[in-house]
Amino acid sequence: MYKITLLIHCPDTSGIISKITTFFHARKGNIIYIDQYVDTENKIFFMRMESEFSNKIDIDSFRKNFEEKVGTPYQMSWQIYTAGKPLKMAVFVSKYDHCLYDILGRYKSGELPVEIPMIISNHPDLKSVADNFEIPFYHIPVTSDNKKDAEKAQLELLEKEGIDLVILARYMQIIPEKFILNYPNRIINIHHSFLPAFAGAKPYHSAYKRGVKIIGATCHYVTEELDAGPIIEQDITRISHSHSIRDLILKGRDLEKIVLARGIKLHVERKTLVYNNKTIIFT
Amino acid sequence: MYKITLLIHCPDTSGIISKITTFFHARKGNIIYIDQYVDTENKIFFMRMESEFSNKIDIDSFRKNFEEKVGTPYQMSWQIYTAGKPLKMAVFVSKYDHCLYDILGRYKSGELPVEIPMIISNHPDLKSVADNFEIPFYHIPVTSDNKKDAEKAQLELLEKEGIDLVILARYMQIIPEKFILNYPNRIINIHHSFLPAFAGAKPYHSAYKRGVKIIGATCHYVTEELDAGPIIEQDITRISHSHSIRDLILKGRDLEKIVLARGIKLHVERKTLVYNNKTIIFT
Amino acid sequence: MYKITLLIHCPDTSGIISKITTFFHARKGNIIYIDQYVDTENKIFFMRMESEFSNKIDIDSFRKNFEEKVGTPYQMSWQIYTAGKPLKMAVFVSKYDHCLYDILGRYKSGELPVEIPMIISNHPDLKSVADNFEIPFYHIPVTSDNKKDAEKAQLELLEKEGIDLVILARYMQIIPEKFILNYPNRIINIHHSFLPAFAGAKPYHSAYKRGVKIIGATCHYVTEELDAGPIIEQDITRISHSHSIRDLILKGRDLEKIVLARGIKLHVERKTLVYNNKTIIFT
Amino acid sequence: MYKITLLIHCPDTSGIISKITTFFHARKGNIIYIDQYVDTENKIFFMRMESEFSNKIDIDSFRKNFEEKVGTPYQMSWQIYTAGKPLKMAVFVSKYDHCLYDILGRYKSGELPVEIPMIISNHPDLKSVADNFEIPFYHIPVTSDNKKDAEKAQLELLEKEGIDLVILARYMQIIPEKFILNYPNRIINIHHSFLPAFAGAKPYHSAYKRGVKIIGATCHYVTEELDAGPIIEQDITRISHSHSIRDLILKGRDLEKIVLARGIKLHVERKTLVYNNKTIIFT
Repeated sequence: MYKITLLIHCPDTSGIISKITTFFHARKGNIIYIDQYVDTENKIFFMRMESEFSNKIDIDSFRKNFEEKVGTPYQMSWQIYTAGKPLKMAVFVSKYDHCLYDILGRYKSGELPVEIPMIISNHPDLKSVADNFEIPFYHIPVTSDNKKDAEKAQLELLEKEGIDLVILARYMQIIPEKFILNYPNRIINIHHSFLPAFAGAKPYHSAYKRGVKIIGATCHYVTEELDAGPIIEQDITRISHSHSIRDLILKGRDLEKIVLARGIKLHVERKTLVYNNKTIIFT
Repeated sequence: MYKITLLIHCPDTSGIISKITTFFHARKGNIIYIDQYVDTENKIFFMRMESEFSNKIDIDSFRKNFEEKVGTPYQMSWQIYTAGKPLKMAVFVSKYDHCLYDILGRYKSGELPVEIPMIISNHPDLKSVADNFEIPFYHIPVTSDNKKDAEKAQLELLEKEGIDLVILARYMQIIPEKFILNYPNRIINIHHSFLPAFAGAKPYHSAYKRGVKIIGATCHYVTEELDAGPIIEQDITRISHSHSIRDLILKGRDLEKIVLARGIKLHVERKTLVYNNKTIIFT
Repeated sequence: MYKITLLIHCPDTSGIISKITTFFHARKGNIIYIDQYVDTENKIFFMRMESEFSNKIDIDSFRKNFEEKVGTPYQMSWQIYTAGKPLKMAVFVSKYDHCLYDILGRYKSGELPVEIPMIISNHPDLKSVADNFEIPFYHIPVTSDNKKDAEKAQLELLEKEGIDLVILARYMQIIPEKFILNYPNRIINIHHSFLPAFAGAKPYHSAYKRGVKIIGATCHYVTEELDAGPIIEQDITRISHSHSIRDLILKGRDLEKIVLARGIKLHVERKTLVYNNKTIIFT
Repeated sequence: MYKITLLIHCPDTSGIISKITTFFHARKGNIIYIDQYVDTENKIFFMRMESEFSNKIDIDSFRKNFEEKVGTPYQMSWQIYTAGKPLKMAVFVSKYDHCLYDILGRYKSGELPVEIPMIISNHPDLKSVADNFEIPFYHIPVTSDNKKDAEKAQLELLEKEGIDLVILARYMQIIPEKFILNYPNRIINIHHSFLPAFAGAKPYHSAYKRGVKIIGATCHYVTEELDAGPIIEQDITRISHSHSIRDLILKGRDLEKIVLARGIKLHVERKTLVYNNKTIIFT
């Protein structure tokens, strides 16, 4: 069984679904998942489709045909993914280990179908965790003086290994603009608040001060504007007046790791589309 | 704009989506919603689709064509709904008023696009509520002696008004088998527990006794087996050791009314399909 | 059985609980609930205690004694509530009816132990709801020209009836500062967002625009700063990219009414204390 | 600062709180937490209290005095815990690793203040995880033939190391009755359903079959009756018709590990009391 995942968006018009499904049917593809969404305000059509083919197909000519018959006529932005090589994912950390342990546990048990060729950190603290899980660890300190060099060193590592996806697992440094532009919609951050509330530093302190009754965590793609990128997933947990800031931090850890893991999985399984600084999540 | 909602299920095979979408496209229908699901165990294909047509279509010939070209070839069970007359909904109650108030509030504010031609109760207590909302109230007592007569009186009322949907809004009587068979997948009950836990009478007492930390409510279609019909919607709320049975009952009220309302809306908006005693919910 | 609820806060020191419980024990009071909290940052002690007395006590001399023996020595701010007359609650509305229906349903079924002597609105639309529930309805229009007069008319009505608590049940006008100062921690608002996110007007529009995956509602005491008062209760519900602004508004309704009802109950049952623009909620 | 945690239950009568708080106050203890609960049906009083002492106290004579002055007169069952040696916790596993990774991650980062002197498994699969975290791993196979011997080997290991608490982290064997009696309320299990629904084997299969819209996990003390012990903590997650059994298992993993971790923490922080097969959880 050969499986293809198709993700598209294009100007909305009638007949798109009919056109695409007929194209796949004619090539003996059996549709096992289809979901679509129309942004009626901007008149954009979005779709995700999974198909199975009993025989291996020539994917290059399939792609060429699709572009010719469907992509071009409908002015479509599209990707076709085949179940081939796993994504290569780099994990950036600083000192907090809960998200890292969670990612590596899932990785080892096969829950996350990725490769993790490297962990990069601006601190040496979590090297032992990387060692225990037998993953190369690169300590690249970031100071006010060496920002440019650090960025260069990071990007070289990523490029050398052909990294597809960067995870900021409580990495406590701001990613430079150029870095972000190199990996559009391919850097995922976990922010420890229910965005847009409490963007920026020390959200648990702000939540405590404001006296909210619920705290949250937000997994999002990183864009140039801090904590303002497209949101992939959020979740919350209840707190009360009796919880100290330290309690919030502890409770928040469980949220952060679960929400980040959900976000990573959605991306890896090709269930996310980004448009207009928002995500379409196909579930 | 003329809108059609299509709900189908049929043996799974390839090409169904292509066939249907092409059929609609050929008749100038613009698909604004499509969702499908395949029960891989039983090899059944399910789909819900909404289409808009700029011009009014001849719905009778459309239906006839669809049966000929699509329904018959694919051995399809299908319904086509047009945005015509609202569903006629009867509400059955006993003494508890919270679900009734909630339904009637939503009804009055236009949130529930139905007609409510009658409230039927085995007790007279809630007549004043019905009066305030200007809905006919029928008091049909049910005793161990008059079960047959009561059922007959109820069914006559439902038939006379052409009722499409029966809501058991904390109605404290068991619905007889014949009644149920007359309204297959058209009687919706709210049960005050997280089914299948605590089926039957006094679920809050059982939940208290067991010491659970979460209670729930379940909205389901009524079948012959008590509290075992297809589940439409469930939700839960946290409790603690400090909550008395009375506290559970009070907290449960809010759950019951919200979960029932969600279930009713899903049915009324034609977003539910039933197969094998389970629901497919298209959202 | 005679029941007393005690709410206090005072500078934190050792021996307070021992002092208070001994005072009550000496007067044959049986403690049936005690909860305390220490704000360690500001060194403030908070406590809520319920006691039962088999015989009626002279509440005036009890209060006098308590002030002398406990209140003054510990520089305590305290209230003693007896289960006497229900609170008098005014409900302010504009055009949305879902919170009003919910409050009135709970009121009629005895769930909310209050009196509701009046509904005040800046629009005439909900008069029929008030009529159905047989509650006096006062239409006081608020325009840019008559703000002072409207406020005066509102305050006169509240004072005439001896209103203890004002509920803003989706009342779409800003409450003037003088009004707020007259009812400190006695005006409860429901805001249709997860504060502090999306304060101010049109929060569902902002939530849609930002692409959040969860929306919320917040019940808070009204202070001079808009949507910035002490939070009593919050809750949330999941949304997705496929929900329109109208969907958010509809889903939000259920949140708003439930969260507002919980906040009102906490206040009415004397389970809230306010300090430093935050609430302590004893549950 | 010297800290004492007191947990008690006794027949309910008046004056208990006053008596205890006065006893502590007289010994210069400052109460920093107090919570109580009365089981009004069985007339039992429960309390948890934390106190701080500026000077070290003679804990043996303190305990003796407490028994004499408070414990005996009130027929009290009580424990006084000092912040001394951490609990010794054994973790039992089979083949699933997600709960184990989660526990060990929390352990390494200092979130769980315990010692873990051993991991015991009926399968060799997770030895490498134990090795990576440098914790002794004991493989004790359990077959229908060697049940008695396996139990003996397990108990010897536990006794040799002075284990206080046994965690069944998805251990797929039934614990023998004698074992359970040796560790009353000191064996914690995670069951992968929302108990009492779907007790026993294969709960995700049963949940799928029943068509529930929410699945859960339950952390409980182990008693002789399978999956029927006192519930410490539960939580849930939403599912839909489109989730396969495999999806439920994957989603359930996150629930299981979080709920188990919460349960362990509540026990370790001495926040649980068991009475009548139910827990009182002081939070």
